[in-house]
Amino acid sequence: MANCARIEDNGKKRIVIIGGGFGGLELAKSLKDADVQVVLLDKQNFHTFQPLLYQVATAGLEGESIIHPFRQIFEAQPNFYFRWAEVQAIDTTTQMVETTIGLLRYDLLVMATGATTNYFGDKLMEKAALAMKNIDDALELRNTVLSNFEKALQIDDEEQLNSLMDYVIVGGGPTGVELAGALSELRKHVFPKDYKELDFIKMDIHLIQSGPQLLKGMSEEASRKAQQYLEDFGVKIWLNRRVQSYDGYTVTLDTGETLITRTLIWAAGVNGAPIAGIKPESILKGNRLQVDVYNRVIGYENIFALGDVAAMVTDENPQGHPMMAQPAIQQGKLLGKNIINLLAGKSLTPFQYHDQGAMATIGRNHAVADLKIFNKEIRTQGFRAWVIWMFIHLISIVGFRNRFVVLFNWIWSYFSFNKGIRFILGKTHENIPVEAVTQKAVI
Amino acid sequence: MANCARIEDNGKKRIVIIGGGFGGLELAKSLKDADVQVVLLDKQNFHTFQPLLYQVATAGLEGESIIHPFRQIFEAQPNFYFRWAEVQAIDTTTQMVETTIGLLRYDLLVMATGATTNYFGDKLMEKAALAMKNIDDALELRNTVLSNFEKALQIDDEEQLNSLMDYVIVGGGPTGVELAGALSELRKHVFPKDYKELDFIKMDIHLIQSGPQLLKGMSEEASRKAQQYLEDFGVKIWLNRRVQSYDGYTVTLDTGETLITRTLIWAAGVNGAPIAGIKPESILKGNRLQVDVYNRVIGYENIFALGDVAAMVTDENPQGHPMMAQPAIQQGKLLGKNIINLLAGKSLTPFQYHDQGAMATIGRNHAVADLKIFNKEIRTQGFRAWVIWMFIHLISIVGFRNRFVVLFNWIWSYFSFNKGIRFILGKTHENIPVEAVTQKAVI
Repeated sequence: MANCARIEDNGKKRIVIIGGGFGGLELAKSLKDADVQVVLLDKQNFHTFQPLLYQVATAGLEGESIIHPFRQIFEAQPNFYFRWAEVQAIDTTTQMVETTIGLLRYDLLVMATGATTNYFGDKLMEKAALAMKNIDDALELRNTVLSNFEKALQIDDEEQLNSLMDYVIVGGGPTGVELAGALSELRKHVFPKDYKELDFIKMDIHLIQSGPQLLKGMSEEASRKAQQYLEDFGVKIWLNRRVQSYDGYTVTLDTGETLITRTLIWAAGVNGAPIAGIKPESILKGNRLQVDVYNRVIGYENIFALGDVAAMVTDENPQGHPMMAQPAIQQGKLLGKNIINLLAGKSLTPFQYHDQGAMATIGRNHAVADLKIFNKEIRTQGFRAWVIWMFIHLISIVGFRNRFVVLFNWIWSYFSFNKGIRFILGKTHENIPVEAVTQKAVI
Repeated sequence: MANCARIEDNGKKRIVIIGGGFGGLELAKSLKDADVQVVLLDKQNFHTFQPLLYQVATAGLEGESIIHPFRQIFEAQPNFYFRWAEVQAIDTTTQMVETTIGLLRYDLLVMATGATTNYFGDKLMEKAALAMKNIDDALELRNTVLSNFEKALQIDDEEQLNSLMDYVIVGGGPTGVELAGALSELRKHVFPKDYKELDFIKMDIHLIQSGPQLLKGMSEEASRKAQQYLEDFGVKIWLNRRVQSYDGYTVTLDTGETLITRTLIWAAGVNGAPIAGIKPESILKGNRLQVDVYNRVIGYENIFALGDVAAMVTDENPQGHPMMAQPAIQQGKLLGKNIINLLAGKSLTPFQYHDQGAMATIGRNHAVADLKIFNKEIRTQGFRAWVIWMFIHLISIVGFRNRFVVLFNWIWSYFSFNKGIRFILGKTHENIPVEAVTQKAVI
């Protein structure tokens, strides 16, 4: 018999949730008082507050301040079980999840697996580019940026020097915009003090966006202001361009233009991340699982999906909801109630998305926000948007300890014009050795 | 010609310091106003406050709160140059340091390379044991402890379960004592809430000490109290015993007794960590470099050593000074002045160690301290010692940001009885797979 994951069978219906992102977390919480067994599986033992990843990547926050242990979050929820495991496949006929710790039976299964970076099948790009999806990515980017400058101190050749000092960010959504802004702050206030021998006029930050404006999906006003702020901060914005190829050194755009960089950050497309074992007809373009208005995966009775991996395709939303925190959180909350109703034989409530707007911060005192409060749209930019952005993010972070450490770091950074977490600690992105390319250039 | 590390030759005498621990840091600071070029080489881009490593290892502090970037520390010192490099060897005839970034010429060289864990040549032990010398070690220990319990949830076999839940700490100095105390706090206040399915009566913490008392070098009173506190916290203390062997599973003591554990922490002997290229006659037992009262390495004119790697052997101190922070700091300060005098042709001041005492914390409200203030000895234990311990460590941490984050974590932990950094993030110690041993036991 196959190895089985050990979780006591207490006679209750077992709800297995795969993934503890925003959606999975909300769902597990909303099942707090249900007479069921809630099992959360995640390959990390903590929840990640993804909206602040870019601040970890740019030395503004310690990684530990935006993550929170699942076991601590659910300390007071007796029906909750966490298992640190990666899910490899599901078997829908035997109702089993295959994981790195063995097989696990489910009564109801919820896929809350989120999204992965989509390189559109470009294997070279996947190897050469840096992603920005999880805490490991963010720490790797931080280490890479810092070690680039340490290496740059040893370089004479101008092109080699630029390849280490220049950054290319692909994708003009919130992550790309926020990262470009934070890098430009480091360039202005921090790096020139750290690396006095380098000339930071040489450091270019390129932001590449496939469409005609940044922050697609936000108001025209927000896009325009975000672009203006970034340009004021010296970020070079390339609109209406796609990256054709990247080999770890040369970026080629679809217009034929080229850029040289050792650090390309891929903040563009994402794909849903479903698990093997779901029938192909339930999987839509972009690898998302098609769900009905109750988040039930089409073609299954007892399998649900929510958040980024779920596409609730309706006439109103032919693409499903945006792959953002809010739809996942709202779906998680409602699905918890619906599961309780389902088990009690009661009728279910269809999901209705309450768009609360979107926001992005560009740098100190500069943000853009399109808010929807009581169905009233409020558009604001600049200092006021920046204060709102900070407030909303601060109250959204899980855990008092984290909230306090983040707030302290923000206050300290604001008054000192400094970013304190400039450590090369852990994995650094390995590219072609600088020496190899240098020698090639010399020959 | 060999590749050379690029540092501008500004015509000034170049002092190369290898290692930015307590001694190297103090030395570089004390050369602030000297008309020289100070070059600090370190394989990490930050200074580590080693006395709090054990709190990082036991989920009490984030790693980032006890490390500080060198470039930030020396931001306002124009004669200071940092290079992120590992030193491979030195050539004393050409006055060159061979590093991972190329050759570097020196006028004066200072070895501040510290100490490494000494496994007395036992290769199996070196592979199977965890060390506690740097931030990577501390993070690896934290990840290993947490993943042990995650794995334990999957184990039926009693012996296997104990092997994951039990800890053996070798060495009853401050690190061993503080680690044992912190683990016992986790066992009492934190882990039972996290892993409700495990029975923490089964979790044993063993502390092995070769001599007849803990905290050798401290007063008999301090040793006795430390032992009493640890025993009250349920730590099993094994005095007058040495570890004969450890294969990753079974610990064999020289008395023939055996213990089973997957996690043995080696906090016993340390060796000096000198660099290849120094003549063997200058290297003493324990790999320390013999220095005169001016910290000059015996047999060389322009090579100095300080801190753990230096043994200033005198009639008073036949073993050199203790391998602790204080001698390194005091030597660093004086050596800076002496180097300035040396270059000015003035006479040098011999080093005199001012013993300020020693202390160790065992757990909340419990510490032991032997202090020497104005030549007056003050011995105190319990709550008062614990408050003094916290105060002295807090003011010793480099950087306002770190000091604040550490203080906040301490206050938060004190009132919540919690340790917030329970993340499996980064490297985990890889042992024999649990399954392999489980199967062996079943067969």
